[in-house]
Amino acid sequence: EMLGRVLCTVLFLGALQSLAEASQGHISVVLLGATGDLAKKYLWQGLFQLYIDQVSNGHSFTFHGAALAAVEPGQRLMFDVLKKLSCPPDEAPNRCAVLKDQFLKLSQYHQLRTAEDYAALNREIETLLRQEGLQEAGRIFYFSVPPFAYTDIARHINSSCRPAPGAWLRVVLEKPFGHDLGSAQQLAAELKGFFREEEMYRVDHYLGKQAVAHILPFRDQNRQFLDPIWNRHHVERVEIVLKETVDAKGRTSFYEQYGVVRDVLQNHLTEALLFLIMELPANLSRTEDVLQHKLQSFQSLWGLEKSSAVLGQYQAYTSQVQEELEQPQGYVSTTPTFAGVLIRSDSLRWEGVPFLLTSGKALDERVGYARVLFKNRAYCTQSEALRDAGHSQCKAKQIIFYFGHGALNTPAVLVSRNLFRPVMPKDSWKEAVARPDLHIFGQPLSDFYVYSPVKERDAYSVLISNIYHGRKDFFITTENLLASWGFWTPLLDSISQQPPRLYPGGVENQHLLDFEMVSGGLAFTLAEPAELLNPSRQMPSDYRAVESKFRQSPLVSAWSEELISQLASDMEETAVRSVARSGQFHLALSGGSSPVVLFQQLARHHYAFPWRHTHIWLVDERCVPLTDSESNFFSLHRHLLQSVRVPYFNIHPMPVHLNRRLCVEEDGGTELYARDITALVANASFDLVLLGVGTDGHTASLFPRSENGLEGAPTVVLTESPVKPHQRMSLSLPLINRARQVFVLVLGKGKHDITTLLSRVGHEPRKWPISGVRPSSGQLVWYVDYEALLG
Amino acid sequence: EMLGRVLCTVLFLGALQSLAEASQGHISVVLLGATGDLAKKYLWQGLFQLYIDQVSNGHSFTFHGAALAAVEPGQRLMFDVLKKLSCPPDEAPNRCAVLKDQFLKLSQYHQLRTAEDYAALNREIETLLRQEGLQEAGRIFYFSVPPFAYTDIARHINSSCRPAPGAWLRVVLEKPFGHDLGSAQQLAAELKGFFREEEMYRVDHYLGKQAVAHILPFRDQNRQFLDPIWNRHHVERVEIVLKETVDAKGRTSFYEQYGVVRDVLQNHLTEALLFLIMELPANLSRTEDVLQHKLQSFQSLWGLEKSSAVLGQYQAYTSQVQEELEQPQGYVSTTPTFAGVLIRSDSLRWEGVPFLLTSGKALDERVGYARVLFKNRAYCTQSEALRDAGHSQCKAKQIIFYFGHGALNTPAVLVSRNLFRPVMPKDSWKEAVARPDLHIFGQPLSDFYVYSPVKERDAYSVLISNIYHGRKDFFITTENLLASWGFWTPLLDSISQQPPRLYPGGVENQHLLDFEMVSGGLAFTLAEPAELLNPSRQMPSDYRAVESKFRQSPLVSAWSEELISQLASDMEETAVRSVARSGQFHLALSGGSSPVVLFQQLARHHYAFPWRHTHIWLVDERCVPLTDSESNFFSLHRHLLQSVRVPYFNIHPMPVHLNRRLCVEEDGGTELYARDITALVANASFDLVLLGVGTDGHTASLFPRSENGLEGAPTVVLTESPVKPHQRMSLSLPLINRARQVFVLVLGKGKHDITTLLSRVGHEPRKWPISGVRPSSGQLVWYVDYEALLG
Repeated sequence: EMLGRVLCTVLFLGALQSLAEASQGHISVVLLGATGDLAKKYLWQGLFQLYIDQVSNGHSFTFHGAALAAVEPGQRLMFDVLKKLSCPPDEAPNRCAVLKDQFLKLSQYHQLRTAEDYAALNREIETLLRQEGLQEAGRIFYFSVPPFAYTDIARHINSSCRPAPGAWLRVVLEKPFGHDLGSAQQLAAELKGFFREEEMYRVDHYLGKQAVAHILPFRDQNRQFLDPIWNRHHVERVEIVLKETVDAKGRTSFYEQYGVVRDVLQNHLTEALLFLIMELPANLSRTEDVLQHKLQSFQSLWGLEKSSAVLGQYQAYTSQVQEELEQPQGYVSTTPTFAGVLIRSDSLRWEGVPFLLTSGKALDERVGYARVLFKNRAYCTQSEALRDAGHSQCKAKQIIFYFGHGALNTPAVLVSRNLFRPVMPKDSWKEAVARPDLHIFGQPLSDFYVYSPVKERDAYSVLISNIYHGRKDFFITTENLLASWGFWTPLLDSISQQPPRLYPGGVENQHLLDFEMVSGGLAFTLAEPAELLNPSRQMPSDYRAVESKFRQSPLVSAWSEELISQLASDMEETAVRSVARSGQFHLALSGGSSPVVLFQQLARHHYAFPWRHTHIWLVDERCVPLTDSESNFFSLHRHLLQSVRVPYFNIHPMPVHLNRRLCVEEDGGTELYARDITALVANASFDLVLLGVGTDGHTASLFPRSENGLEGAPTVVLTESPVKPHQRMSLSLPLINRARQVFVLVLGKGKHDITTLLSRVGHEPRKWPISGVRPSSGQLVWYVDYEALLG
Repeated sequence: EMLGRVLCTVLFLGALQSLAEASQGHISVVLLGATGDLAKKYLWQGLFQLYIDQVSNGHSFTFHGAALAAVEPGQRLMFDVLKKLSCPPDEAPNRCAVLKDQFLKLSQYHQLRTAEDYAALNREIETLLRQEGLQEAGRIFYFSVPPFAYTDIARHINSSCRPAPGAWLRVVLEKPFGHDLGSAQQLAAELKGFFREEEMYRVDHYLGKQAVAHILPFRDQNRQFLDPIWNRHHVERVEIVLKETVDAKGRTSFYEQYGVVRDVLQNHLTEALLFLIMELPANLSRTEDVLQHKLQSFQSLWGLEKSSAVLGQYQAYTSQVQEELEQPQGYVSTTPTFAGVLIRSDSLRWEGVPFLLTSGKALDERVGYARVLFKNRAYCTQSEALRDAGHSQCKAKQIIFYFGHGALNTPAVLVSRNLFRPVMPKDSWKEAVARPDLHIFGQPLSDFYVYSPVKERDAYSVLISNIYHGRKDFFITTENLLASWGFWTPLLDSISQQPPRLYPGGVENQHLLDFEMVSGGLAFTLAEPAELLNPSRQMPSDYRAVESKFRQSPLVSAWSEELISQLASDMEETAVRSVARSGQFHLALSGGSSPVVLFQQLARHHYAFPWRHTHIWLVDERCVPLTDSESNFFSLHRHLLQSVRVPYFNIHPMPVHLNRRLCVEEDGGTELYARDITALVANASFDLVLLGVGTDGHTASLFPRSENGLEGAPTVVLTESPVKPHQRMSLSLPLINRARQVFVLVLGKGKHDITTLLSRVGHEPRKWPISGVRPSSGQLVWYVDYEALLG
């Protein structure tokens, strides 16, 4: 073993001598996991390509493969890989053979297991630099190892392998970077203990795919054409798709923990989407601006809900898991192997445009693309038969970034000829040759300008080159990573127990996985075929909203998502009926956190709600300015009012802020509000009052033993809350009880105790104000979710 | 002549005898213009069809042809027509021959020229009824005469030919019913002097076309399928099209006065559109409800503007006019023979859905249809090549009411198979036979369920039957007619001087008449080809906005439409710059009528306006409640705020209404507003103040010799207006002059005198407050239209 190492070092130094005079300094590349699959398949080839490209550009290199194996077997394994490195087709064979020989001589294997091993590696690098009189430019550590090994390796590198001051350190990390927001935060926090942000290069190899990498340059170089049309007025939809024919066989130990959303959508497809939708910085070469704009895009995306996704699983998956993970026969996996997800943005540019992300295994073809489909805004007077084929404005208009495989079988950029002839950099993209028979996205290929890369390069070559150049915009920053997990985690949580639709795989899938946008979410187009249904899959979420009685009034109960959905529908129905009867709908809404989800539901799924005829009143308010984020009205505005069209005159915030002070009795805010109610609401009887319940039994801002509002006149009162902000304004119980309809919404485990208590007590408003809600001639309905009801 | 008349009467009575016992009474049909083109071509055939259909249903009939010609030649002409009446293909030949013989015997010619002629006709009918012992059911007078003859005939019928009490009178009128709102109102007023509304049946023969007549029944019978999708969330566009191959040759004396908009769009296409978009009454058989709902639809349509239409004229038209109307060589007609018009609705159901109406002569094919195209809301996971052709949800979804001609050459109703199988009445519509080669609207015919009529019936037969049945919903009521003219007249006025695009005609038109939706209006897709441009056609409207100086400040001037357009663009640019600089845009707007058009322009054409970051302030307000239609804020809300998304907190109406009273000084409204400005607007310097000018030189609500606001502190003041409502609140001149930018908008001939005056006077705010607008460090720009500038 010792002999081997010495021999290696000798070979190594010999190859370097010719480079001793390199002026820009030396770069040491350390590939951890040098004999693993990824290294074999892509990374060594990528490093060789880097060497070929940069050998005469001023830096000198050494390449250090590392693994846990002892030197002798590891060295043998590694050099077996290196010997098989291929020459790029565009490289002169002679030159390549010489370079490959040099590359082999500059490469060395290291066993890295203990702290001492890392220290030894560092000494060797330092010795080399000293002996050869080389100035150090930097070190690249490429982590091609399982994530559980990250922390140890990171600690060792940080403590033993940092380069000399003045030289840079770049550590390259491969996914997975956690499996949800929490774990990603934890991993990020650990890494932060060892590396500075600018030292970390998190790989998403999609960012190295040529068609993906060209999205931003394309948008930049074609601004003159795209500026007027790259928005919601012209774009009909954006599709980002990665279809695979392979399944997860042999990889289920990984796949069963991740599934398609974590494996493909959270990273690859999200990154491609962001390149398409982010605001374009003025100057693309300013990496920091690109990263900032990308990050800002996340802010504009609507939160995902369960209804945002359709999920599938190929039929053989469960048995593969049973076999590979030695699970019992009865084991059923809910890991999705197919997902379609609808993403929406509320930016001025993209509001209303659906972004559809789709990926799956065991599908009918292997293909990946990002497709921007434009609206047809034209009417063609000439009949179809007589239209000039190529340039008709009535043909579909699209721009497609074709990642590879599929019918084209090459990365490509396609632009409909009736859009514009794109500007493409001639040195890297060429017009593709005509293929008369080929149809793609519903059109003959001849309808498009088609460009493919002059040199096809695999993603890792592109990325390794970008690591070398320090182009961080090709990598995932910590902020970006956490923003993405923050975006995806709520969906992952909400679908974790949901049974995916089973599909047979391949062309047999037929239309089983086609899906549609339905009232703000997605749904499969075909009903679930009975023969594929697994009867053992009865999940709690399959329960429908059930109706019963609670405190002598109707009770609707379900899991919270269904419950909110039902409540929103019932509210719409009440509103429509009320408008049909009286021409208007007077709705009084409560503050607090439970209604937020309801407000979003109303804003996003209830297009037929008669907002123009609805008056919005507040049940209660905190004594803070209306623009304070603590204000109930502020929250109502943010989650509902800014998204729907209620006339200005119909919006009635509580006047807690008068004469530049808050809830001062002499300012007469309560009287003012009561007068407005009397003036506008017939008989001061609201059409619908929405209430919540506190754990102490309070409702509106009527707290136990409140001096005001629990009895007496139907009016508006100032009250005191036990929690901050203490001062409140509230409708009184008698006023609430004049309503035609009162809905009480109770959500969550935290409300289980009070729910249980309320099911037993009678009318005791001084102890539990909610128990005093008994509309004198109206109807009371309880909406209580299973967690509050059943604990 | 006398002999002829006697002979006729004898024949006539002979035929009637068999019907003497008819129980439901007798109907006399009088066809005025009995030997004219329409009568020859359609009306007699329609009356014969009526007789065939109704002969055994209880009524007896006589048919009275009438014209100006004397009895003998008229009679001969008429019977020549009657003898040629054809038997419907679905009628047994024997029965038909007998019926035709009877029909001839029941028909009689009358010369109707003088009052005495009408009195004679009436006597004959009465004599007949008496002699035969028939009870009178009613009389139908069908006006197949030029409109200039209407009034005389109507007067005679009213004074001499009304049926006996208890029997009805129905007069049937053929278009044109005026050529704009004014003339239609006049004609309607005249007819109203002679007939009650329920007596008048205005024909639009499109309402008798079987595919048009079936639109409402289709919507009614397919409610279950259509209810969820018949709205803006599912419908992408509606196209209503009538293309003709013929040109206007031989008819230019009519056509030159009307043009395609009056000839086809105002009536036929509008009626078809209304059937598609009107709210469906619960019960279609309630004619009154149908008419009411149709009328309500007009209310929801956006007003048409010049930019709503594209216009064309086939090249030979002008020379045809020169020849037929004996016009000189230099005569140029601006009458459009082709029009595409974009109509929009702001109803909850249709907001944002484009309705495209298109018609023209000398086009490539003859065809008419109304087409509802649905959005594709699906994503098909299976690749196209492998998709099941018929039912893929990714194929286009459409419903087409095919009026006739074109590739199908029959009326038809087509529904995409991936939508639903429609319910169709089996007695009147049958499934059409497969025609494998036929493609229609971009799809093979096999993609549709296709229904055609069991019996093809021409429109006039359908209408005559509906006149007989008293189905007024198949006719144009006065209200409907005036609503339609009210809708179309502003467009007709605005395009009357506009040169249409010339097109060669037929298939030569190529893509010359294709058009697109562009920022809220329409535009031809191809630029005007130079060789077709007529250099003599320089119109005033071709002038572009010119820039110059007025009162030492920049002046923008143009015709009012272009001026408003320019001003709105400049406002958007100012807003975008302001938001980029400070994150917000403080905009102070004036009341009055001039800004209304501007507000609409901003609401409809400026999607990129940064409304979310805009604060809206009022320059001045009338002391009326905000919900009063006199309130400036009310108008601002109606025309702008309700259509855009300004956050509630950014909307700042003037507090004219405090403590339930208006503009009382002690209530401190002016101080309140001034404090709000100070608190929110940096340095109390608005980013943009928009002002107008009164004929007396007032601006904001600062009137000549006002005691407040013309000098002193930059604040908010109460002022007195010389006109009602007298009390006003206004920003003061010094406050206005703190603005970064002030735009002054001056529109219309009425402002010419003050504009001229202002161009001469200096700084005299006490005489002319507007002359005191001199931003201390900001910029002032004048937007003055040609009418105000040039008089």
